[in-house]
Amino acid sequence: MSPSAIEPQAIADTQAAAFIDRLSVNGVETRRLKAPKIGQGVAAHASSDMFKSLGYGKPKAKRWDHRLSEEARSRKLSPLKSAANYLSTPGLISLGGGLPSSEYFPFEWLDVKVPAPPHFSEYATKELGIVKRIGKYDITDGKSIYDLHVALNYGQATGSAQLLRFITEHTEIVNHPPYDDWQCTMTVGNASSLEIALRMLTTRGDYILTENYTFCSAIETALPLGLKCVGIPMDSEGIIADALDSILDKWDPSAHNKASKPWLLYTIPTGQNPTGSTQSEERRKEIYKVAQKHDLYIIEDEPYYYLQMQPYTGPSSPDVPPPSSHEDFLRQLVPSYLSMDTDGRVMRLDSFSKVIAPGTRTGWITASEQIVERFVRHSEVAIQNPGGISQIILFKLLDETWGHAGYLEWLINLRMEYTGRRNTICEACERWLPQEVAEWSPPMAGMFLWIRILWHKHPAASTKTALEIEEEIFQAGIERGVLIAKGSWSRAEPDAEPSPDDDMFFRLTFAAASSEAIQEAVQRAGETLRVMFGLISDDGGEGEVKEAEKVVQNGRK
Amino acid sequence: MSPSAIEPQAIADTQAAAFIDRLSVNGVETRRLKAPKIGQGVAAHASSDMFKSLGYGKPKAKRWDHRLSEEARSRKLSPLKSAANYLSTPGLISLGGGLPSSEYFPFEWLDVKVPAPPHFSEYATKELGIVKRIGKYDITDGKSIYDLHVALNYGQATGSAQLLRFITEHTEIVNHPPYDDWQCTMTVGNASSLEIALRMLTTRGDYILTENYTFCSAIETALPLGLKCVGIPMDSEGIIADALDSILDKWDPSAHNKASKPWLLYTIPTGQNPTGSTQSEERRKEIYKVAQKHDLYIIEDEPYYYLQMQPYTGPSSPDVPPPSSHEDFLRQLVPSYLSMDTDGRVMRLDSFSKVIAPGTRTGWITASEQIVERFVRHSEVAIQNPGGISQIILFKLLDETWGHAGYLEWLINLRMEYTGRRNTICEACERWLPQEVAEWSPPMAGMFLWIRILWHKHPAASTKTALEIEEEIFQAGIERGVLIAKGSWSRAEPDAEPSPDDDMFFRLTFAAASSEAIQEAVQRAGETLRVMFGLISDDGGEGEVKEAEKVVQNGRK
Repeated sequence: MSPSAIEPQAIADTQAAAFIDRLSVNGVETRRLKAPKIGQGVAAHASSDMFKSLGYGKPKAKRWDHRLSEEARSRKLSPLKSAANYLSTPGLISLGGGLPSSEYFPFEWLDVKVPAPPHFSEYATKELGIVKRIGKYDITDGKSIYDLHVALNYGQATGSAQLLRFITEHTEIVNHPPYDDWQCTMTVGNASSLEIALRMLTTRGDYILTENYTFCSAIETALPLGLKCVGIPMDSEGIIADALDSILDKWDPSAHNKASKPWLLYTIPTGQNPTGSTQSEERRKEIYKVAQKHDLYIIEDEPYYYLQMQPYTGPSSPDVPPPSSHEDFLRQLVPSYLSMDTDGRVMRLDSFSKVIAPGTRTGWITASEQIVERFVRHSEVAIQNPGGISQIILFKLLDETWGHAGYLEWLINLRMEYTGRRNTICEACERWLPQEVAEWSPPMAGMFLWIRILWHKHPAASTKTALEIEEEIFQAGIERGVLIAKGSWSRAEPDAEPSPDDDMFFRLTFAAASSEAIQEAVQRAGETLRVMFGLISDDGGEGEVKEAEKVVQNGRK
Repeated sequence: MSPSAIEPQAIADTQAAAFIDRLSVNGVETRRLKAPKIGQGVAAHASSDMFKSLGYGKPKAKRWDHRLSEEARSRKLSPLKSAANYLSTPGLISLGGGLPSSEYFPFEWLDVKVPAPPHFSEYATKELGIVKRIGKYDITDGKSIYDLHVALNYGQATGSAQLLRFITEHTEIVNHPPYDDWQCTMTVGNASSLEIALRMLTTRGDYILTENYTFCSAIETALPLGLKCVGIPMDSEGIIADALDSILDKWDPSAHNKASKPWLLYTIPTGQNPTGSTQSEERRKEIYKVAQKHDLYIIEDEPYYYLQMQPYTGPSSPDVPPPSSHEDFLRQLVPSYLSMDTDGRVMRLDSFSKVIAPGTRTGWITASEQIVERFVRHSEVAIQNPGGISQIILFKLLDETWGHAGYLEWLINLRMEYTGRRNTICEACERWLPQEVAEWSPPMAGMFLWIRILWHKHPAASTKTALEIEEEIFQAGIERGVLIAKGSWSRAEPDAEPSPDDDMFFRLTFAAASSEAIQEAVQRAGETLRVMFGLISDDGGEGEVKEAEKVVQNGRK
């Protein structure tokens, strides 16, 4: 951000090679050795510019001044924060800021026990795990570049330099953004990132573009801001590019409360919530082209990006061997929008929630400098930054213990674990669900299996609406001891009139339940469907209920 | 919130006594024994209603429907969250939510070393501190009611039941709110709480009432939302009630962009930032009366509430002895607005930032059920909740190690520490500042000393504005090696025309610097003022600058 902070000329002259090359895991050490020293003090300024490759020859991002909301445009740098520039004056004593003294932080140290790669299981960690100490004055004591005295005090809205470095490097290793002025800044998770992004980029009355089934919390974030979602038709690879293009080509303000053509696309490209769909590389390129044609800004929300799995081979075929190396693993990931974002029209939302733990409440965004700067100004007077205890524990784990190589090992391990879970639920569905009325595709990423119910085959299809039958199936599932999420909870346009052409879906999560519980739950769901569709009782009515009760008893045995 | 969750009838019948009494530290244990068991599971529902006194005979809070913003009014309960009600169904297997498995949280345990009351110093903690282990499955193992498997997963926007219980009890012990339906909910700190409160309670174009010098981040939070602050005149006890009343009585929309009379008062009653002023009990009562007359809603932002100090006796008089007991300590605290809020027209913002550590990013609000419910809905699609690692570390420290008694001991210790710091800076000011041009009152709370500069005595007072002279003094201070905050940074109405009647102030923080640094900094500030006001050089101009340079050299020796 501030060029003087990283002395670009000096770097350009002497260290160019390390910064021009595409960053790889093995290149991190060299890069760090040659980079300027990072600020370690309390609330030290940090920017991805200190840690990322120089973008020789890469284009600068587009400006988005015409898209920023009045709120976002009017944010100013705090005068107190501007005054922080003087703090580097030699000998200066500051009685300016309102930071408390670390003397009164009632923690001497934290110890944390974490897995030693590649032994990631809970059992292996018990036997072989590594204990790391986080002391209060480790920086002064020369033991670390980060300590409790810094982490427990106020910090910058970007997050600490120490963790931001790891995050920036990781983002570059995975995505290699093709424009020059990209940056990362930390967040308290993607829910908050989306909320901030919407407030920065939209105004009450706007329409935004989303998958036609999308994360219900995203809809609930948008609606109270006075936004409406336009659901884009999807297939098994998510948003259909032609459908997106067509909706925009044909946009008629008079049919949309006089709202002008939407230009903000919110998408979950990988392991989408709720549909489990993953956009292929080809699909992403098509959508990016549509975005260029209509000057869209894309928010890619990627909590499940690293939950991409091995191909599904079915119960009777051998498993596909795991990635053979870090490079092989990275190659097998579907390229992100960020990795193809030559224009700087993408804000990528990343989070540790699904790959480390939700309770860290730590994530980050990657976007162009202009957008990140406005995001940081917003955060300064809102969330401020992720908790310092979370940041230092993540730093200790990711940077000091695992390193980038260990973290990729962890992600490969997660990939294989989720592959196993996905296989379990797919096999259970094949065994237990009535395929006359239920269809699904094995997901390639994420936590969700999305089941289409052929509700027109329901005995009451001619007298009841899809929403009524969906609710009946949901309640019958509860009675039979299984809770599965209704697809209609995730409709992008919940107020749209129900139509006889409506599809019906249920979402099954395979992230948390044990293999046995998944089997049992899917069996109960299958029985529910069979009863509801009259497949296991031909006397209907009374008999059906009795049959159902019997099955419940069995189901709960 | 949900009456069934706490079985009120059962409580009323058998446990009434423990819940009707005013809660004291000693009453907590009995109360807990008699209270229903709290939910300990992942993302278990929690509400202060589970932990607080029943409000027999107390009035219900006023409704604020007429004050909620369109955004706040339109928030809905997430369908997925509603579905969580089914999770208590016996035998139910949920494939509904998107929670990851704790199996993949790469932390086996955390150890944390904390002070053993009353031995709170860093040195004493090294010798006598207590080490507490936080295991992943302590709940299953019967070792604790809170563990990493819960803390590291998603949680409720209220915060965890385990920590919310402590916070609710603490709030009640200190404040005993005089209405029935008060509740607490956790936040990520007061900056975020204020941002949420403003979005809930205001609309672009509104005016809000603040101290005429106020926390500059609060102004920066309000301005981009399209809000304007009306600064209320203050004296040494903060906002002047009559002035507030008069501004409201005389409000003329045509003089305020047609805005209707403001009704939201944002105040920092104790150790106010930046003025250090503390509203007396009498003053608070007067202001509350004005609030009732004009139907104001009060946001009391109280980060410094527990940094109330012993009376200042000056360098030559003996210190006032510390509080003799917990009750004595609590009695000496100025009563909060919450404690006199018979109408439910107060949202109190509390934070651990100044009393434990800012890096916890954990605070809470207390307000009426209606307001808390809307706040929780907002948080669910924004900040979600404070980080689980912070929550469990605070629980381990406050609930399992210190208890309420130990925490009050800690707060008494802080009181005495801040008293010492306040005394140091006041004595330094008395020694080093030129009292011909600088005036101040010893603060009774907080981190800030507020110095009025009699700028009309400045040699250039007739040719320069107050803002110009303030900037010159600020810069001269930097050159002499001391940074003090300009009062104008905190003006509630920064765009108001400068007037010759304007006061000039500087804010000195005594929270963090060592005693020696405070002495040195105040000496430099004093020299700066003497030079700028021509008090230590009678040749002016050139000579003044040379004198200044000499002092800088000395100052930096």
